Amino acid sequence: MLSETEVLDAAADVAKILPRTPTVTSEWFDQRLSSTLFFKCENLQRTGSFKVRGVLTALRRLPPERRRRGVHAYSSGNHALALAWAGARLGIPVTVLMPWDAPDVKVAGARHHGATVLRYDRYTDDRESLARELAESAGTTLIPSADSADIVAGQGTAAVELIDEVGPLDVLVVPVGGGGLAAGTVLAAKALSPGCEVVGVEPANGNDAELSLRHGRLVSIDTPRTIADGAQVRHLGRLPFAILREHGTRVVTADDAELVETMALISQRLHIVAEPTACLPLAAVLAGAVPVAGRRIGVLISGGNVDLGRYAHLLGGGPAGADRQPGSEPSSSRRPCEVRG
Amino acid sequence: MLSETEVLDAAADVAKILPRTPTVTSEWFDQRLSSTLFFKCENLQRTGSFKVRGVLTALRRLPPERRRRGVHAYSSGNHALALAWAGARLGIPVTVLMPWDAPDVKVAGARHHGATVLRYDRYTDDRESLARELAESAGTTLIPSADSADIVAGQGTAAVELIDEVGPLDVLVVPVGGGGLAAGTVLAAKALSPGCEVVGVEPANGNDAELSLRHGRLVSIDTPRTIADGAQVRHLGRLPFAILREHGTRVVTADDAELVETMALISQRLHIVAEPTACLPLAAVLAGAVPVAGRRIGVLISGGNVDLGRYAHLLGGGPAGADRQPGSEPSSSRRPCEVRG
Repeated sequence: MLSETEVLDAAADVAKILPRTPTVTSEWFDQRLSSTLFFKCENLQRTGSFKVRGVLTALRRLPPERRRRGVHAYSSGNHALALAWAGARLGIPVTVLMPWDAPDVKVAGARHHGATVLRYDRYTDDRESLARELAESAGTTLIPSADSADIVAGQGTAAVELIDEVGPLDVLVVPVGGGGLAAGTVLAAKALSPGCEVVGVEPANGNDAELSLRHGRLVSIDTPRTIADGAQVRHLGRLPFAILREHGTRVVTADDAELVETMALISQRLHIVAEPTACLPLAAVLAGAVPVAGRRIGVLISGGNVDLGRYAHLLGGGPAGADRQPGSEPSSSRRPCEVRG
Repeated sequence: MLSETEVLDAAADVAKILPRTPTVTSEWFDQRLSSTLFFKCENLQRTGSFKVRGVLTALRRLPPERRRRGVHAYSSGNHALALAWAGARLGIPVTVLMPWDAPDVKVAGARHHGATVLRYDRYTDDRESLARELAESAGTTLIPSADSADIVAGQGTAAVELIDEVGPLDVLVVPVGGGGLAAGTVLAAKALSPGCEVVGVEPANGNDAELSLRHGRLVSIDTPRTIADGAQVRHLGRLPFAILREHGTRVVTADDAELVETMALISQRLHIVAEPTACLPLAAVLAGAVPVAGRRIGVLISGGNVDLGRYAHLLGGGPAGADRQPGSEPSSSRRPCEVRG
């Protein structure tokens, strides 16, 4: 299995290319929660999320021949956007499969960086087999969004920076989708802040990680309906699952209403923009699902890519997703894998 | 007149109490503007704006006897909020005069920190004489929002940090209200980046600074109607005016529609929350009022205190201020100086 050393190595690599993201503190949240909170702002990272850390780590280790032929990925958004950015930077052709209902800002961002964007239906298509077909026909290399040692090591570098900056933590709370970030964070904490508990937070409607860890086997669910589009996954990656299980990592949940409330608080009190998935950790803390009183808490704000209209709507107190119910478009009008990029 | 050394001294003082705010960069803005931009995030400062820098500098130099009797200020919002925070921290009683139409988040913030909040009408009351009466009756010391050497020195510390972090700049763009920030920035740049031009930006509806500098005398106007509530001032402070005039500082303008557009871009591309006044510098840059191509540009994001509903409304593309036209409330229903705090 992956070792902590690989996460520390990835951090040294990533620091050569990416700016160190700021950590912000808030007296308001500290008072409200009777604790000391450190918000690691991955929404201020290049491409607007932590995903670029894993992607860079993976691409830099790819042999020249495979770089030349190009890479591909399937992703609900941020992984695709990050891969497009990194590919453009390293001169590697990128093709990404993104769901029809991915936020426009993520799709447009991937195209802006020159990636070929194919689309699929998140609820009905099997994106893994679509990606496999793509690999067979084009000979490109799949860069997984979570289930890879390089990706896990890269995602752990955010926690490396955070602990390096603020010192040891009692708890570090991160969102969970495919589990790459959570697993990387577990390894980073083990290396640099051994007493620190890492808690993962996933959408209440999609608690596959919680189920998997409870039952001790990888549980797969239907693609969950939630505004946390970055965590709309059916199951954890195998490697992240193994790491989270080995370390006894706890995973809790937050529902969409809590995410909307948290998003507004983050806007008003931290003055930063967090996308719905990035609100999972603080939502769980505010709901009391993570005991924080008197302790030093790291909260990872994972990304800030949310469409403007949707963001305005959610901040304005509209019902979650009322403007655009995920997956509500008639899938008959959407051909999977139609080339648009 | 105030010297650069006093700004550098203030920076050393302020660093003992306030966290250093992050500077963020954006490839998207760099590409769009063919320049290298550094955004100094004073919206992430304690109390959500740079104002706390000047206030701390002023209060720390106040003799014990005057500290005991307390201080007061009149302010459109952020100065009052910052004074309340600093007073609570240093054990100094604070009374603030705030306009009826100040953002709720600023008024609530001042009260949260224990200040007594009095209200006035921004368009009809003479806040300076109200403040004078207050001083005479209560014996408290006025802490001006701009027209004081300590305040100017303190506000200059944001630029000190920025230049210290990123190195010399070609241009540094800041919002202009009473002129304290602009004047302090001019002195900081003179000391640390002598070739750097400081450009001030004020609301198009309230171009008193532009007029004052053009005519070489302090011009006073009617309180301007603009969504940039932090820059709704009738004239520059005398000291800031003298400093800006001596250094030949250029002041340009941006209108409300430009501020709304810029606010949305800041949300989408920088993933931070800027209040309308804080959008003035980037709005002017985007409008071409500040030549930036091929140059290193500092942009000061001065604050992030904007009411949630208003922010959602402005981001949602609503007409500027349609939800709450500044000053549109019938002033007959608003008694000046009613005690509420």
